[in-house]
Amino acid sequence: MKISELSRRSGVSIPTIKYYLREGLLPTGTHTARNQAEYSENSLRRLLLARALISVGGLSVAATGKVLRAMDEPVTLLKSLGLAHYALPSPFPAEAHEDVDEKFVAEAQALIKAAGWELVGDTPYIECLAAGQKALSLMGVDWTAEGLLPYAELAHATARLDLDQVAGFEDRMAIAERVIVRTVLLEPVLATLRRLAQEHEAAQRYPRSDQLARESDTE
Amino acid sequence: MKISELSRRSGVSIPTIKYYLREGLLPTGTHTARNQAEYSENSLRRLLLARALISVGGLSVAATGKVLRAMDEPVTLLKSLGLAHYALPSPFPAEAHEDVDEKFVAEAQALIKAAGWELVGDTPYIECLAAGQKALSLMGVDWTAEGLLPYAELAHATARLDLDQVAGFEDRMAIAERVIVRTVLLEPVLATLRRLAQEHEAAQRYPRSDQLARESDTE
Repeated sequence: MKISELSRRSGVSIPTIKYYLREGLLPTGTHTARNQAEYSENSLRRLLLARALISVGGLSVAATGKVLRAMDEPVTLLKSLGLAHYALPSPFPAEAHEDVDEKFVAEAQALIKAAGWELVGDTPYIECLAAGQKALSLMGVDWTAEGLLPYAELAHATARLDLDQVAGFEDRMAIAERVIVRTVLLEPVLATLRRLAQEHEAAQRYPRSDQLARESDTE
Repeated sequence: MKISELSRRSGVSIPTIKYYLREGLLPTGTHTARNQAEYSENSLRRLLLARALISVGGLSVAATGKVLRAMDEPVTLLKSLGLAHYALPSPFPAEAHEDVDEKFVAEAQALIKAAGWELVGDTPYIECLAAGQKALSLMGVDWTAEGLLPYAELAHATARLDLDQVAGFEDRMAIAERVIVRTVLLEPVLATLRRLAQEHEAAQRYPRSDQLARESDTE
């Protein structure tokens, strides 16, 4: 298809598509005539994926390029998943990663062990977890492996749902794309669901119309 | 305490504290002498909270001010929780909120109903959820209430854990602060735990060292 059709089918403007092409987010089309290029269904899929990572996942164009190129590496599915996963930005701002000492890394590892997780790659998420635990400890929230284990178990159940959804697909690239899409797009959806569920739970547990005295009575 | 002690105990620099004071993130101290002010334990707690929302939650200074002022409203606990909650930034980038049509809002409401959640306030999170469902639908991921219900149930279990942690506290402000701290700080922790659990699950389900042909065999 021509770039105009690529734009129409994806809903992404032609200048944005050209920008993504320059940044290496999409494979360049096949040149058929001067100033004309043909794009494949694969380009369309990549474009939709890039757009979703940027506009919903909030990834930068540079981070998106890193994820997409990682998925293209000619390696096994598991390795390709890992590379794409590790190319995602940390869930924490850079500042939270400063001065995270060994005590927190050790407790992050203890939590992973308690959850029974076997990690094969050189995952950056142990350090992310440690950064989060440090932040919790500064705010007086239980940051220990024991305290966080119930949350880890719910995260594990969530990850099982994620992987269940890609079972049955056989194409390595299709699986990697689907896992990355789910990882990135569902992250804000899950955060939203948790906030809604908190509102429901708070309304169940605390009275609607009274003052502090009565609130303490009902606890 | 003097500003120097406030800085030492919080780990936040004096210029940053002064900036937060100007932005209304902290109550101004009690003036005791020319160019001297006394700060309370309450100021320290507020400062730690502001710092955590900014450096770990990734909130802007303006968004942080909005959350902190919402918590100070002289209303019931439930209302105060709601105000602080609604002052949090959306989990989605602004772009994801564009052109979300009624179809998605209706399905967001169907999901909330299916989950059994009763929402008392005028929550902004129904629209956030609809924005997420639209993004999922564009990427061919199941975005229906039925498809997302298992995720909603896990989010509900997570919210129960969150609220369990504040049970027993009686002070309205202490509860509101604790809920907000947990909501914001645990969001990236939960995202990290899910990514780690995905790595474990992927390693369990897909072989480590072989090519596409064998990968499909084992599915």
